[in-house]
Amino acid sequence: MSTLSAAAESTTVWAELRHAEPSDVPFLRRMIYQMAEFEKLTHLFSTTDSSLLSTLFPSPPLPPFFSFTPLVLYLSFTSPPVPSPQTLSITQFSLPSPITDPDEADFASPLGDGRVVAGFVICFPNYSTFLAKPGLYIEDIFVREPWRRKNLGKFMLSAVAKKAAELGMGRVEWCVLDWNVNAIEFYKGMGAEVFQEWRICRLAGPSLEKYKND
Amino acid sequence: MSTLSAAAESTTVWAELRHAEPSDVPFLRRMIYQMAEFEKLTHLFSTTDSSLLSTLFPSPPLPPFFSFTPLVLYLSFTSPPVPSPQTLSITQFSLPSPITDPDEADFASPLGDGRVVAGFVICFPNYSTFLAKPGLYIEDIFVREPWRRKNLGKFMLSAVAKKAAELGMGRVEWCVLDWNVNAIEFYKGMGAEVFQEWRICRLAGPSLEKYKND
Repeated sequence: MSTLSAAAESTTVWAELRHAEPSDVPFLRRMIYQMAEFEKLTHLFSTTDSSLLSTLFPSPPLPPFFSFTPLVLYLSFTSPPVPSPQTLSITQFSLPSPITDPDEADFASPLGDGRVVAGFVICFPNYSTFLAKPGLYIEDIFVREPWRRKNLGKFMLSAVAKKAAELGMGRVEWCVLDWNVNAIEFYKGMGAEVFQEWRICRLAGPSLEKYKND
Repeated sequence: MSTLSAAAESTTVWAELRHAEPSDVPFLRRMIYQMAEFEKLTHLFSTTDSSLLSTLFPSPPLPPFFSFTPLVLYLSFTSPPVPSPQTLSITQFSLPSPITDPDEADFASPLGDGRVVAGFVICFPNYSTFLAKPGLYIEDIFVREPWRRKNLGKFMLSAVAKKAAELGMGRVEWCVLDWNVNAIEFYKGMGAEVFQEWRICRLAGPSLEKYKND
């Protein structure tokens, strides 16, 4: 009986992965900060709305997937989203019980249509010399805490991989922290190979600045 | 006496890091193959002159450092190179004894001016969401075997880092194999931080193609 009752109460939610617009910048900034908190890297965070706007929305605009490409995940609770040129992919899922989203007000659509932003992806083209083909590098893929474990990460990664394959690209790549075993299992389940031997090297801050006067 | 005699025989060589031109494509392809041999990855190599040409030299051309940017290292043995708009940086070094370069004919400038191609760099912009700034990712940095241990890698990496700093970019990043201890020491000496915790994930080949029909 309780199972039946729970099933009767489940509601449908629609998720739309859309190309971000300038009005999405405050959502992106707040989620990038939440990601820095999760990775314990807030000391590296210096992002502002204006720096995101000028770097992600240059004038003239660059074609999506051929430069920095921000995507935003919108959830709709009352009716399915109407596909637009901004839409990359739409899916739906069931919520067996209501979700408490403490940050809902910070992530509500400015249109007042009840939609809520639940995640984002930022990707850009990379290049493989062995294939002589561009690929896509996913800099960030993020779902806000209340909306995790609902296959939304899989939905976003699949949509980006589908687009890369359609564009004839050779690879989709991203990075994961080696202690994030849940993420690694998830990515392997998506078909990804996880490379153990490669290490990232970085020049940044004063170590980069000193080359200016070389 | 023998030291003096060796010093007297040392010759000056000039190295010029230049933006590649379409005529450099066969040099790039041969060096990419040599790199695949060094990394024991020739089974992944499917690069041709025409695939390099179409992906690295699109029409209309993209501005350097804002898209895929191939650079080629030319050596001059008789006189210093004349700087041109293609020039990124020029240096000189001494050769205490003559170098035997078995592949010299394959890497001789088509202008018949005695110059030889000794290395290359391919880089492209990446993006840091924590900084809200573009950076540069170095996909490949390569010096042909006879010309190694002459600071040419350092010269090329410094020139790229200087350019990134001048452009106000936040980071220069690249990858290294964890067993390549000589390279790791070299990069640390250049000021780079080597990240131990991050792992690269990749969807490629059939694992990527299957998303096309998602």
